Amino acid sequence: MKTSNPTIGLDDFRTSMPLPGALDPHFEEALCHVLDNPGTFIRPRMVFQVAAAYGRDEASAKDLAIALEYFHTASLVFDDLPCMDNALERRGVACVHFEFGDATAILTALALINRAYALIWRAVSQATPDVQSCALTYLERCLGVEGLLNGQSLDLHYSTLPHNCGTTERIARGKTVSLIRLTLVLPAMLGGASQREIQLLERIALYWGLAYQMVDDLKDVLDGAAGARKTVARDILLDRPNAATAMGTEGAVARLTRFIQLGDRTLFRLLRLKYSLGFLEKLRNGLEEELVRVTGQACAAPVGAWR
Amino acid sequence: MKTSNPTIGLDDFRTSMPLPGALDPHFEEALCHVLDNPGTFIRPRMVFQVAAAYGRDEASAKDLAIALEYFHTASLVFDDLPCMDNALERRGVACVHFEFGDATAILTALALINRAYALIWRAVSQATPDVQSCALTYLERCLGVEGLLNGQSLDLHYSTLPHNCGTTERIARGKTVSLIRLTLVLPAMLGGASQREIQLLERIALYWGLAYQMVDDLKDVLDGAAGARKTVARDILLDRPNAATAMGTEGAVARLTRFIQLGDRTLFRLLRLKYSLGFLEKLRNGLEEELVRVTGQACAAPVGAWR
Repeated sequence: MKTSNPTIGLDDFRTSMPLPGALDPHFEEALCHVLDNPGTFIRPRMVFQVAAAYGRDEASAKDLAIALEYFHTASLVFDDLPCMDNALERRGVACVHFEFGDATAILTALALINRAYALIWRAVSQATPDVQSCALTYLERCLGVEGLLNGQSLDLHYSTLPHNCGTTERIARGKTVSLIRLTLVLPAMLGGASQREIQLLERIALYWGLAYQMVDDLKDVLDGAAGARKTVARDILLDRPNAATAMGTEGAVARLTRFIQLGDRTLFRLLRLKYSLGFLEKLRNGLEEELVRVTGQACAAPVGAWR
Repeated sequence: MKTSNPTIGLDDFRTSMPLPGALDPHFEEALCHVLDNPGTFIRPRMVFQVAAAYGRDEASAKDLAIALEYFHTASLVFDDLPCMDNALERRGVACVHFEFGDATAILTALALINRAYALIWRAVSQATPDVQSCALTYLERCLGVEGLLNGQSLDLHYSTLPHNCGTTERIARGKTVSLIRLTLVLPAMLGGASQREIQLLERIALYWGLAYQMVDDLKDVLDGAAGARKTVARDILLDRPNAATAMGTEGAVARLTRFIQLGDRTLFRLLRLKYSLGFLEKLRNGLEEELVRVTGQACAAPVGAWR
């Protein structure tokens, strides 16, 4: 590993999307609005750490890290549209559609997606043909009708589905787990991870993805607007899937704790195979700290107990 | 060349997008609505013919042909949205957003795009790394902020731009020429075309793309709804770019004729280098026939005169 905690910076996020001189000024302004207001870069940091664990350098991880952050950002721009979640604020500023109109917001998201595919291709181009094929098939599966897009569609039609944890988890598998899977699995694949390691990473992504979504659902119910940096308590208002609403806060916390425990067991097995993935422990602890912060109660499996 | 005029069929268009069993039924219905109502497959036919001219078989051209048709279809789904062209009918049936809502229409278009990138990758995977890199960079350029997306953004903000042929052509370069470029240039690139051949194909795509858009603009002004199979005369209604409105019908026909002539000169040079691209002559004549059909007047350079 080269540095303690490498990630992309605001400059990388912005400059990885070259804007031509002849760009329509409205479009350029909207793109800059999105590129100047990035998220917390948690996904890029994970990509760098997994890549480092498999001995890959920062440069080769960067394209992948930015591509996944662009896909994630594009999904948020679409999510926030009036015809979807109808949010007003994102990442501390006005949503791009609110500032520049729905049509320009759509084009902005598509620009991020187009660039992301190009960066992904560059990231995989050094791999063997077999690994390239696996990685690109995996990308298609996670982003497409088997993954993210299906989750988003189920989310939109939540009012027609049974309001229980089966439904909220099916949606979270599509919407949240898909991108976490890409974040953990793709850099491992490109780094030559074994089938078994990839299986374990996939399961960790599932458990943590579901847990992460539940923390988010609990935040929506319990937090004030300032903490979440986006429009909150919208789930009940709009009849949108929320595990804490579907199961009650206590039930949600219990299930979330269970996911963390299942994740712990999987992580234990994974670290026996690949000790250099030890940074994942920090992520796991961060998830629990977030749970404690939001709910005020400790997880049933306290930090370190899973060892 | 294997058969006289190979193209993709309705079955290929539909089955190249595998739909998983667990798909949200609303999403599935919307996807089927789009997949069951394809266009005329003019782009796939061109891809097959260029590929055949470079000695590639139908199987290897098919992924590329379908991918480009998916990109094209997705761009139409976005274009038709209420926040863009606000169309009601497309390809003889209700627009997908009109039938299934804006959000589901957006997801449907994104599903086509995600699948299209996967098919493109499969299509280029047999090429050398250099050709792969050129082809994917070209794809990004034509679809992204330098191409299609910028054209669409200029189109949306037409009311703020000077209403002249400079503006309508700038928009057509982005919106129309970009996809025709991909259709003519990508199969040639993958077939090992020389730099000079690619340059000439690019220019043909430019002239014909601009001419094709002008025919479409004239149709919008002159045609009845039944002929165009979509909502017409919307350009004036919505203050959208239209060369025939910006320059007058006569001026537009004169300029269109000029583009056909410039295309003819370029085609002449190209066919001297690559005789097997002779099928392009038919496309050129089809363009003129369309002009005659729409305007009732013959082109200044009659069919065959360019030889």
